Amino acid sequence: MSELVRFSVSIDGDLLKRFDRQIKVGGYPTRSKAVADLIRDGLVEEEWKKGKEVAAAIIMVYDHHKRDLSRRLTHIQHDYHDLIISSQHVHLDHDNCFEIVVVRGVAKKIRKLTRALKAAKGVKYTSVATASTGRGL
Amino acid sequence: MSELVRFSVSIDGDLLKRFDRQIKVGGYPTRSKAVADLIRDGLVEEEWKKGKEVAAAIIMVYDHHKRDLSRRLTHIQHDYHDLIISSQHVHLDHDNCFEIVVVRGVAKKIRKLTRALKAAKGVKYTSVATASTGRGL
Amino acid sequence: MSELVRFSVSIDGDLLKRFDRQIKVGGYPTRSKAVADLIRDGLVEEEWKKGKEVAAAIIMVYDHHKRDLSRRLTHIQHDYHDLIISSQHVHLDHDNCFEIVVVRGVAKKIRKLTRALKAAKGVKYTSVATASTGRGL
Amino acid sequence: MSELVRFSVSIDGDLLKRFDRQIKVGGYPTRSKAVADLIRDGLVEEEWKKGKEVAAAIIMVYDHHKRDLSRRLTHIQHDYHDLIISSQHVHLDHDNCFEIVVVRGVAKKIRKLTRALKAAKGVKYTSVATASTGRGL
Repeated sequence: MSELVRFSVSIDGDLLKRFDRQIKVGGYPTRSKAVADLIRDGLVEEEWKKGKEVAAAIIMVYDHHKRDLSRRLTHIQHDYHDLIISSQHVHLDHDNCFEIVVVRGVAKKIRKLTRALKAAKGVKYTSVATASTGRGL
Repeated sequence: MSELVRFSVSIDGDLLKRFDRQIKVGGYPTRSKAVADLIRDGLVEEEWKKGKEVAAAIIMVYDHHKRDLSRRLTHIQHDYHDLIISSQHVHLDHDNCFEIVVVRGVAKKIRKLTRALKAAKGVKYTSVATASTGRGL
Repeated sequence: MSELVRFSVSIDGDLLKRFDRQIKVGGYPTRSKAVADLIRDGLVEEEWKKGKEVAAAIIMVYDHHKRDLSRRLTHIQHDYHDLIISSQHVHLDHDNCFEIVVVRGVAKKIRKLTRALKAAKGVKYTSVATASTGRGL
Repeated sequence: MSELVRFSVSIDGDLLKRFDRQIKVGGYPTRSKAVADLIRDGLVEEEWKKGKEVAAAIIMVYDHHKRDLSRRLTHIQHDYHDLIISSQHVHLDHDNCFEIVVVRGVAKKIRKLTRALKAAKGVKYTSVATASTGRGL
């Protein structure tokens, strides 16, 4: 985090009114935080498109009764050990597991790991929450 | 369009530098236009979520050789005539047609029409470009 | 369109029941059409990621009172004339225009054109409905 | 998981060829797993739209130097304690934290919690990986 700087914006008055209402409903402390969040969302999207180093959480829902699945998922994750920060496991019910794999690395490799986990027999669902490493945000 | 108003924003200096670079690469004339665009994107997204009156283009790719398809698509569109502004047809090649249906109405009804077109036998693909009616944007 | 072929799928009985319910509610004529649609959606997504030749509709909402905007939008579109199949114009109200630009070409170039239109002063909103050329779908 | 059942699908031969190539590249063990995954993706999407009980991971990037932020985030999370299964914390670098909040509940409430976390001063970025509880998947 560097120093705060100030700049001014000219926009249509009705548009600003609508933005202010949205900010208020969203519980935002200030317009500045709301504008900065919009800017940051755009920058993170760009980092992913351009293949920069990013961070993410890959989540999986799977049936742990499936023979050999845990071993296989561990095996896949070890192939990408340089990418993976941590793995967390949640028991959803008697059959279903929820696993969160926190990763950091280039977008392409994160997508490759996601595809490998998704293809494993017994994995029912995968999705990815995309973020950035926080640097320059 | 009402009058222009001015407000100021305080954000991290490094973040502003990154935003300025993005603006420049994107060919944006001013920071104000860039900030206003981010605000408008958020407002249009909200209009769709809240089920307000919006505008959109539904596109379809279909095989016009499919028996009775044109008649069926016209029939479906007439069921939603109050929603549809216009229909445009493009010949992609010998087999494939590309049809653009411009609509205006509540989000829920637009989704219902899209589903009906998508389910028609011979329609291979549908997608929707979401926009707003432009009022208060 | 080549000949129809037949293949069989083994899935969990409860999953199939849920799928059948979804198909029925969606008004789908057959399971085969529903499965084919899912496959096609995945293939079109891949074509966009891989930068193949695709088709799309770019939509814009803009204020036609903005000085010189029509001329500027026409100018930008001419820079991409090899990409553009057609342009259609709809009057949303006294101030707002809705323009649909139907394009065909590589994904990267379509995104570049979209960015150029989006950056033009007076353009309030843009979005893209992605499709394919229909070949092999 | 109930018993496996078998059903057959008729689709265009060229389309099946393209699907088989995609399956092979993706490392999928069988066509049945690939088709089941497409069906499951559609069902989970629907669960979110219809406001059913779902599961998700909310991720945040924030600056832990920000005064009082940890206390505030803990406070917000306690307001939603019936929704939250676990919270995990990762140190990205000297300044940036990455927090993963695993939740289970109705979609609307998960979105409300996400918005509350997003609005907190010092939180730079949030996103959500959507999943289901795994039941009937």
